[in-house]
Amino acid sequence: MIPSRQSFRPIQRVITLTDLPQEFSFIRRHFSKLAGPAALNLRDDAAVYTPPQGRELVIAADAMVEQVHFLPSDPPGTIGRKLLRCNLSDLAAMGARPEGWLLTIARPPGVTEEWFAAFSDGLLQDQKIFNVALMGGDTTSTRGPLVLSLTIIGSVLPGQAIKRLGARAGDGLWVTGTIGDGALGLRALQGDIPDPSGYLAQRYHLPQPRVGAALYGLASAAMDISDGLLQDAGHLARENHLGVTIEATSVPMSEAAQKCGETWLKTCLTGGDDYEILFSVSPEQEKRLAKNPVVNTTTGPVTVTRIGHFHNTFSGAKIIGKNGEVLNFSSPGWSHF
Amino acid sequence: MIPSRQSFRPIQRVITLTDLPQEFSFIRRHFSKLAGPAALNLRDDAAVYTPPQGRELVIAADAMVEQVHFLPSDPPGTIGRKLLRCNLSDLAAMGARPEGWLLTIARPPGVTEEWFAAFSDGLLQDQKIFNVALMGGDTTSTRGPLVLSLTIIGSVLPGQAIKRLGARAGDGLWVTGTIGDGALGLRALQGDIPDPSGYLAQRYHLPQPRVGAALYGLASAAMDISDGLLQDAGHLARENHLGVTIEATSVPMSEAAQKCGETWLKTCLTGGDDYEILFSVSPEQEKRLAKNPVVNTTTGPVTVTRIGHFHNTFSGAKIIGKNGEVLNFSSPGWSHF
Repeated sequence: MIPSRQSFRPIQRVITLTDLPQEFSFIRRHFSKLAGPAALNLRDDAAVYTPPQGRELVIAADAMVEQVHFLPSDPPGTIGRKLLRCNLSDLAAMGARPEGWLLTIARPPGVTEEWFAAFSDGLLQDQKIFNVALMGGDTTSTRGPLVLSLTIIGSVLPGQAIKRLGARAGDGLWVTGTIGDGALGLRALQGDIPDPSGYLAQRYHLPQPRVGAALYGLASAAMDISDGLLQDAGHLARENHLGVTIEATSVPMSEAAQKCGETWLKTCLTGGDDYEILFSVSPEQEKRLAKNPVVNTTTGPVTVTRIGHFHNTFSGAKIIGKNGEVLNFSSPGWSHF
Repeated sequence: MIPSRQSFRPIQRVITLTDLPQEFSFIRRHFSKLAGPAALNLRDDAAVYTPPQGRELVIAADAMVEQVHFLPSDPPGTIGRKLLRCNLSDLAAMGARPEGWLLTIARPPGVTEEWFAAFSDGLLQDQKIFNVALMGGDTTSTRGPLVLSLTIIGSVLPGQAIKRLGARAGDGLWVTGTIGDGALGLRALQGDIPDPSGYLAQRYHLPQPRVGAALYGLASAAMDISDGLLQDAGHLARENHLGVTIEATSVPMSEAAQKCGETWLKTCLTGGDDYEILFSVSPEQEKRLAKNPVVNTTTGPVTVTRIGHFHNTFSGAKIIGKNGEVLNFSSPGWSHF
């Protein structure tokens, strides 16, 4: 094909090809500050990462969608942090240490520069807290809601990843921290619950992933609670072909959650957004925990609580009240569909 | 907090907790067949992956949005494959071999089971072609367009990742395959160009990533062409603080592209969607290529073509016509914003 100048459309605007394209300058403005050594200054097609010698990698991906997982009115500084923390929680549940992360953004035209500046500043704070750095990603446009997708890479000593499979009948069911704050926080933000201290809203916006939780050798199986305690306990039981019974009176609740009163118990037990670790413990290991029900994490020690036990009946999860009666809910938890 | 049965809403429907939740069964139906050993049957919070000993990892992430990167009417079997191939192309440009991938899906209610069945069947075909397996991912709902985000993990011998930085003044500019087919294919699908054989449309739907291209030691710098030859050549020049001149008459075009005529040259050179590798070659290495302008890849040998050269003037990319005149375009390529 022989080109001729006449075949081209007239120049509409002058383009200096040494200028950065819009996408590149957007990335530099907001994401260069997050980039770790593997990111190659976010200038290449891919990151180059030397995995830590003698370790396995643990890799998870999670997406968050505006109007589904967060609201346009949520503080932008917390939205990215929450997504990062949800992914960190997946690593924590498997006993892995964070190594790096990648982010793709489908960006609607209405999201401002100020929004992204606050978004990435929040992420920078969390990178420092959890000792992790950005490896790469992609930005694209969309006419729909903002969609953020994050892939996190962590590492663990070979064979030490804690899986969902491994619980046995007779094991106790334990959780880190307190349950229900995140779900109540959402309802507080919606105006349904008073939250004078802002504690619940803060727990909703910024869950506390239990990164570095020293569960290897202690937990026989583990997962993080994102979709509601009852539903996620059901997953854990089902994966192990067991049943699990949770005593509602044992489920640890924060002071703020307790103040909400009994009518909100269902929200606490099925609402999700906890990002605590749910794990099974053999009777032998339970003796250790009974003496000192605390587990160390990267961000400090966390109290752990026995909330139930596994049994041989393949029946999923049930919750019983103070008189041993089964509590029934219309839905066991959050559905992504 | 002491629960009492009265505080719960009446049972709306019976839930058998041993049943799979909707999200899990969706994943099993469509994605279990793609899962490799690292995926742990897609049942855990994260994948566990043992990186190949003595190699570095190369990691890229790309998102595709309905209405931006593909149309709802596009064949579902090709949409996932195209996204996978775009990511494989990023690995190929850095000389990396694919290891595994993760996918997040933000799914609008209108996308059917049949659509996802065809989508994942297509991915299965490509997994066999490119010897790669799914590691994990996430599905969520959205009220907006379908958004797919893919993270790919590859590996390379230490220090052998080919980067964008490394071209020198005097190096030649080379490309694999042919340029413009993808961009013309889109216009053909839009009815603007005849495409009797369907070749162009097929190149748009299923680009051919040059996985395994043996460029180490040959290319001084490389990237893949996704946003248009002119724009991407400008990126390569800028990263190296150089200028690059492309001779339009040297740019390799397929027979189908040549048949479209000169009026479509701009589309070929700036339209993007090529997923060919653009690379710089030193004069010494060019002697090798001059004798045999072919590079081996995983899917067979590919012809490579010299289309221009780098020079010391930091001026981005320009394209000259057959009489040495500079061809001006209104836009150098595709913008993601």
